[in-house]
This record gives sequence, C-alpha cells and structure tokens, in this order.
Amino acid sequence: MLRAVDVIQKKRDGQELTAEEISFVVAGYTSGQIPDYQASALSMAVYFRGMTPAETVALTEAMMRTGEVLDLSDLPGPKVDKHSTGGVGDKTSLVLAPLVAACGVNVPMISGRGLGHTGGTLDKLESIPGFRVGLGLAEFRGVLRATRLGLIGQTPEIAPADKKLYALRDVTATVESLPLISASIMSKKMAEGIDGLVLDVKTGDGAFLSAYPDSEALARTMVAIGRGMGKKTVALITDMDQPLGLACGNALETIECLEILKGGGPVDCRELSLQLAAWMLRLAGMEQDSAAARKRIEAALASGAGLETFRRTIELQGGDPRVCDDHARLPRARESVELRAKGNGVVSRIACRRVGHAIMVLGGGRETMDGGIDHAVGVVLRRKVGDPVTQGDSLATVHANDPRRRDDALAQLATAFEIAPEAPAPRPLIHAVID
Amino acid sequence: MLRAVDVIQKKRDGQELTAEEISFVVAGYTSGQIPDYQASALSMAVYFRGMTPAETVALTEAMMRTGEVLDLSDLPGPKVDKHSTGGVGDKTSLVLAPLVAACGVNVPMISGRGLGHTGGTLDKLESIPGFRVGLGLAEFRGVLRATRLGLIGQTPEIAPADKKLYALRDVTATVESLPLISASIMSKKMAEGIDGLVLDVKTGDGAFLSAYPDSEALARTMVAIGRGMGKKTVALITDMDQPLGLACGNALETIECLEILKGGGPVDCRELSLQLAAWMLRLAGMEQDSAAARKRIEAALASGAGLETFRRTIELQGGDPRVCDDHARLPRARESVELRAKGNGVVSRIACRRVGHAIMVLGGGRETMDGGIDHAVGVVLRRKVGDPVTQGDSLATVHANDPRRRDDALAQLATAFEIAPEAPAPRPLIHAVID
Repeated sequence: MLRAVDVIQKKRDGQELTAEEISFVVAGYTSGQIPDYQASALSMAVYFRGMTPAETVALTEAMMRTGEVLDLSDLPGPKVDKHSTGGVGDKTSLVLAPLVAACGVNVPMISGRGLGHTGGTLDKLESIPGFRVGLGLAEFRGVLRATRLGLIGQTPEIAPADKKLYALRDVTATVESLPLISASIMSKKMAEGIDGLVLDVKTGDGAFLSAYPDSEALARTMVAIGRGMGKKTVALITDMDQPLGLACGNALETIECLEILKGGGPVDCRELSLQLAAWMLRLAGMEQDSAAARKRIEAALASGAGLETFRRTIELQGGDPRVCDDHARLPRARESVELRAKGNGVVSRIACRRVGHAIMVLGGGRETMDGGIDHAVGVVLRRKVGDPVTQGDSLATVHANDPRRRDDALAQLATAFEIAPEAPAPRPLIHAVID
Repeated sequence: MLRAVDVIQKKRDGQELTAEEISFVVAGYTSGQIPDYQASALSMAVYFRGMTPAETVALTEAMMRTGEVLDLSDLPGPKVDKHSTGGVGDKTSLVLAPLVAACGVNVPMISGRGLGHTGGTLDKLESIPGFRVGLGLAEFRGVLRATRLGLIGQTPEIAPADKKLYALRDVTATVESLPLISASIMSKKMAEGIDGLVLDVKTGDGAFLSAYPDSEALARTMVAIGRGMGKKTVALITDMDQPLGLACGNALETIECLEILKGGGPVDCRELSLQLAAWMLRLAGMEQDSAAARKRIEAALASGAGLETFRRTIELQGGDPRVCDDHARLPRARESVELRAKGNGVVSRIACRRVGHAIMVLGGGRETMDGGIDHAVGVVLRRKVGDPVTQGDSLATVHANDPRRRDDALAQLATAFEIAPEAPAPRPLIHAVID
C-alpha cells in the first residue's frame, strides 16, 4: 500500500517517482487525506532534488485531474490559449485574444489576478464597468460559442490541488522550484480543453524569474509538459526589463489595449501582441507559416473585427460595451501629476519591478491575494528606454486618488528612471522562441 | 520581525541560522504558533543542508529550553549520566548506573522505551514487579538524594519540543538527519542537570546507524553539542553487530544484569559496562586515569555495593527488591524451546537486527510507541560469534508465552545464525573513543 512518507523518502533520496505515486500524493493532499506537513516536506524534497520531465508531466496531470477538465470538443474549430508569466504593463491578452478569436479560433482564456508588482488580466477586465469574470462553466461555454472568446477567472472546479498547494508553498519557502512552478501553471491551462498553448515567458527585472537562463529553463520545462500532455506548445521568451507599452494600471491598460485594437497604441505592446497572436494561429493550424499568420492577424486588426469581438464579449459577460468607443466610461483617477526629468540625456533604464511597486503604492495592485484594488490609478510612461530627455520633460504621468499615495508613488517612480549621456544597447522585444 | 518562512528559506539557501532564529522556530512550534507544515519543511531543508556545530548546539539548547531543566546543584557530589543509541541486548545501564552511584557519583538517569528492534531501559526496569519509572521530578530528587541513583522515564516537562518534532519527522522522512538526531538525544540529556555525559554510540547491524562512518559522525556531533553546552562529554563507539551479552528480552536482561552485579554474567556485557562506568567516574572527576577508575568500579562490584545501591533504588521506586536475590520473582515465560544447530562449524554471524525482530515477534518489543509489551519473553543466546558448534547444539533458548509467536520467532531466529567452517575476524567490543 502506498504511504506518503515512503514517497517523500523516495524523492528525498533522489529516486524517480512513478505517476501512481505522484497521483496518490496529489489526490490525497487535495482531498485532505494527506496532511499539509507531508506535502510541505515533499515540496522541499522536490526543491532540492528536482523532477524528471516524466515526473513533471505526471505532477501536472495529477494536479489537473483533481478538478474538472473542460471538454470543448462540441465547439467547432480549434481551441488555443496564451499564458504569460506576468509582468508590468503586460496587457497583450486583451489585444490578442479578440484578434485570434476574430480569425476563427476559439480562445477559452482562464486568467489570474495581479499579485505583488505584476498585474493580472482579470483586474484589467474588471476595470470595465459591469464586466463579470466569475462566470460558471456553462455560461462560459455560451459566451465562447457566441464569440469564440471567453475571459474568466480560475474557478474552484479547475485544478483545486494548485490553489491548495500554492498557498502551502508560499509559507514554506518552496515556491522557487522549476517543476512545481511549471506544474502549477500548466495544470490550469491544460484543463482548458485546448489544442495548443502559446507561452509568453518574461525575462528581465520585472519578470517572475529575472535572469535569462532561469526564464529559458522555465520555458523549456513548460513546453515539455505541454507536449508531454499532447498539446501543441510553443514559448516566446520576451523582454520585461522595462514595462511593456506605456500604460501600467488596470483601466489605463484597458484603454491602451482598445487603442491598439483601433490601430494605434505603443509599438512594443502592439508588436508583441501581434507576434503572440500569429503563433496562436499557427498552433491552431489556421496558417502554416509566420508571414501568412501575421497577415491574417493584421487584417483582423485593420478591419476592426478584433475590436468587434472584444465588444461583443464584453457585452455577453455583463460589461458596458460603450467603453470601446468612449474611454471616459472607464474609471478615472481624481488627479494626475507629472514626474519630471531632473537632467538631460537618454533614458538608460526604467527599473521595471519598481514601477510595479509604484502601482501597488497607488492602490492599483495587491500585496496579498485577499487585497482589494483601485482600478483607476496607475502610471503612464512618457519616455521609454532609449528616448532622449531634457530637464523638465515629463517622464511619466501618475494617476492617483490619494495625495499621500501619489507622493509615495512619485518618489518610488523617480528612483526607477535612470538618465545617462548615451542610450544603452537595445534589448530585443523577443529574446527567443522555444518551439 | 522574525517569520518562520524566512527562516526556512535561509536554511534552504544554505545560510547559517542564528540562535535567535532557531529558538524562535523551536519555541513557536512547541507552543503551536508555528504549524507542522513549516516545521516539516524546515526539517527537510536541514536534512539537505545540514547544520553547523553552532546551529546544532543552538537547536539542542532551544529544544531543551522548551521544557524544564533540572537543577541538581543542591545535591552534593558530581552528576554524570550515560546514554546509549540503542541495540539488542544492550543492558549496560542497569549494571553501570548502580556501580557508579555506589562510587559516590549522582546518576540522574532519564531513559527511553524500546522501539522496533531495539530494547529500552524503562521496559527492563518495569519487568521488576512494582517498579515505577513514572516518578514526578520531586520524587525523583528524593530517590537520588537517598541512593544517588534515580531511574525514570521521559516526563512531559523535559524537552517537549523533542516529542512533538520527533513524531513529525517520523512521518515526513526527516528522521535520518545527523543534527536533528543529535539534538533530539542531547536536548533530553542536557536537561538532566548533569556535569558530564558518557555516550555509547552503537555501530554494526543492530545499531540505529549501522555503518561505522555514520556512527562516528553521530558520536562526534553529539560530543560537540555536549561540550558546546559546557558539559564534559565523551563517546565510545561500541559494537552492535551481534547482541550484547546473552539475554535479549526484558526480564531476561534484568536477570543478566543482576548476575553481573553479583560478579558473574557474560564477559562482553560485563566488560562494556565496566568501561563505560569507569569513563563516568573520570568525567565526574573522581579519578584522573583509567586504571584507577577501573579499579574503583571493580571494587564496587566485588564488595556488592553496586548491587546494594540497585536494591535500595528498586525499593524506593516501588519495586520488589527481593528480585535481586530471587530471580524467580521476575516474570517468566510459560515455555522455553531450543534453537538447534543444523550443522557443524563456528558461528560466523548472528544477524543482530533479526534477533531484535524475533523479540518483537514474541511480544517483547513494540512496533509503535503505543504498543504494549510482554516482559517475560525473549531469547537467551547459547552461542556467540566465534563459538564452535556441533549439529544439534542449542544456539539459543526462546522463551515464549504463545505457541504461534514462538514458532514465528524460532523461524526468524534460525535465519539470524550463520555457521561457517572458520571463525570470522573478531570485531572489537569498543571500536573507538571520541574524547
């Protein structure tokens, strides 16, 4: 008979666990038959010993199987999603999901909330008055069937093991384990009933894992899991050394996405959204080569089909679709102040994590999962890395609802900008593609 | 402010913990403020990272400080104890403690029970009708004052952290950690109010740690803790590759001890008892060199002073002192059967752990701490390693109270003996002294 203590010891001693052993522990822990203290000891043993690719796939599968796995086979057409490891100003989902859906691909996107310095798709969506991210799975299917795009939050039915295990890892110093991180992410995405998944793995100061080799290892582990579970999977390692785009903060980012869907918006965020969207089309089997996929996405953008899809999905999920035309219907902070440059030169760095912390200081992010959020506040960058500045220029606009938080955020933000005589070597938007 | 998760992470990352951090976790865990799952994660991190000597001393001190620390300074004379890591037939306490006390040294001995294949001093004592090992600390002091010898069990007041932490380690595969094992043992012994401690660290098949390098590492770690806490400490690494002496099983072992205290008994058990006792006298400062210490112990044996001290202590602790003269007053099993040799030659091995398991099969040991025990049953060896045998000779006598258990034990025991044409190279009784 399997016993948790024997499984812990086996992992502790560096032996490979079987899928049966992994499933026994994951299912037992989720149901409460295996106590927290055995799960934490095993997590620490995994931290030190790692997991083989086969173990990592088995862990992901076992976590996924603790909950409901969507079967979307009744929906015509391919199903593809994108997942980002998170960052500051990282808002591509609201651009690419409507575009890809407009091209005929189902996008059943189950997203998360922001935590710490990183934002979350659900919070941006909830800045739209009335938008409901908490649809039941039946209603989610209905929206998907209508627009091919559904945007909801993690439900208790999806991979409950992950929620329980993540909370435990958070208080036992076992978060920073590549197989555990990867299985946590992938167990939820693999439950979505998708055929393919594009992973946007961030690297740089604002990323969950800042160092490039760590980001690459994470990307490779997740791609191996996706493929091990029979899904087309590709990862783009993309830059998060400065915020993506200009807007950081929930309503402000939603506005930026709407601008991109209308053909405008900042170049970097637009470009990354289109590249990720093109990969989604390729995984969906809609196009074979990147040029054709890109062309098709650009057409959906130019025709306004993407915006239309977004508009209809907003409406079906209870949101006010008029925000698409009238951005003033989104919450707006009471005041905005400029952060001014104190010297001349070129912006050599925008410490990304610090910008994220400034958003938190303003009330636009949360320190713990229980925290509330102010959707209106945030920062809009006026200069990005490489841009020339003259003393007195605005570097960024701070949107605040509270004078004290405003001043704290300004001080925080002032330390994020570095001005140098010359521009640094440019960092690529996309560092690598793991396919 | 200290947080358990930060302490876990620090250890996980291989940094040295401060005494304050260790004390925070140990005290918090014992009081219930720090949950099991953090203690198990930290234990697993310690399993992988180890502990520095300073950390190990701090852990022992912190565990000791969760409970009462005896202050025996009101008792005249030095206070010294002995601790064994346990084995089969390991009964030296009942011999050496009365002898050392008879020489003028206080021996406040707090012992444990047998578990698995190893026996325990408390169980042997409880084979004496009426003997109470559960004295309160006040009564313990009274007995000590009268005879200089008190023999009790672990009380809830002594190092409660150890009991809680050991139970947790047992189910989280974190038992086999040298600093955790050492701190567990030493936290209880250091609470005894002693000036010196002789450690009997067993090595060989029947020992807790079988391999010599492991035994030596344990001995060195414990000696370092004892000295780090300001106590004179010495460790003898002694052989447990075959049972010590001839009798294995509680009442049978008590009889063997009484025989030794009367000048008889098997040579190996007598010799080890005297050597350990002599070391206790030296740590007590009663004698400077080993020859003088040995002489003094032999005098206490020859004069019968050791037996007298044991007799008085038995009486003061509620036991029947007549057992000292009339061994038939100890419980006796209903039947005894011989294990006969199936061939001729020399005993080349007596698989020690297997003999211990045979005792368990008879009901004389326990598999879990809650299990009851039959004091009467056991095994008396008739041949030891190196002894010649002729087919049909008795190798051992099995004392049983149940025919089925008897047969199972006989079968178990039969596989423990190996007969070869020639004697193996003899193993020393004492492998090394760590002083």
